[in-house]
Amino acid sequence: MPDAPADLTDAYKTAFRGHPAGVAVITAEGPDGPTGLTASSVASVAVDPPVLVFSLSTNSGSAGVVLGAPVFVVHLVDSHGVALAKRFASTGSPAADDPIWGTLPSGDRYLPGAATALRCRPLSTTPIGSSTVVVAEVLDIVVGLGHGEPLVYHNREFHSLTDRSRLS
Amino acid sequence: MPDAPADLTDAYKTAFRGHPAGVAVITAEGPDGPTGLTASSVASVAVDPPVLVFSLSTNSGSAGVVLGAPVFVVHLVDSHGVALAKRFASTGSPAADDPIWGTLPSGDRYLPGAATALRCRPLSTTPIGSSTVVVAEVLDIVVGLGHGEPLVYHNREFHSLTDRSRLS
Repeated sequence: MPDAPADLTDAYKTAFRGHPAGVAVITAEGPDGPTGLTASSVASVAVDPPVLVFSLSTNSGSAGVVLGAPVFVVHLVDSHGVALAKRFASTGSPAADDPIWGTLPSGDRYLPGAATALRCRPLSTTPIGSSTVVVAEVLDIVVGLGHGEPLVYHNREFHSLTDRSRLS
Repeated sequence: MPDAPADLTDAYKTAFRGHPAGVAVITAEGPDGPTGLTASSVASVAVDPPVLVFSLSTNSGSAGVVLGAPVFVVHLVDSHGVALAKRFASTGSPAADDPIWGTLPSGDRYLPGAATALRCRPLSTTPIGSSTVVVAEVLDIVVGLGHGEPLVYHNREFHSLTDRSRLS
């Protein structure tokens, strides 16, 4: 595909900067220990069997680990997990012995501070330029104990949903 | 893939019901005139060239028209477009001469009441059970005049984001 004109790219970036999204942290086991990244593109595709989709904008660092892993964990994050979302949006992941990590019954590491952990295996990874679309089947689900407010990412800021944000 | 156990499917539905998402209306020209559907799975994949992804949970009705169309329009909807989102979440689309429709410079019909209209061509459509993942390139963008609040769909209700919903 040819490069897009600058004005189209700019309009596209502006459009999606204004498009709100839920927040997820995706973790996987790499050669140097567990790693993860924050993603705002996780969506459900199908329910039986449960299949989700997300995209990664690079294939290096934590994204490369997720793309190469036979199993990874997609965490849906609520307002109690804002610190997790911020932590995994920055470079460098917590060390393997950091108490941020827990262990699933399967033995895979996960983040008990997230609202929900979905252990997944990739069904397909489709490169689109330097990005990749990942379709994954959910193998099992661990629901966290805490219940925060729904968390939304919009224009580089976090919002939470409450009765006051609801439209009649 | 084998069917998922009922408790996994239930946990999965509950998890994504609680995962907030932005709102989009996708329209295309069918044999019986223009049609459309409301989707909460639209996400950006890449910016240069601009590519987005969404999924459809069926291939009949309006979804079938979108899946068969050489060109369709993805509208990102804000709080001024709640009525659009509700209208296209129900069965049956507005007639071709309904004033809800406008015409893009390309000649394609679109919804001027949406915040942004992205005219797209499909790059790939991947069936997952009875659902389909669509990856599409954005050809051009029309930005609407009005500026509502960002609109979020969560647990079958609409919310808007404001200064009050922002987390410090």
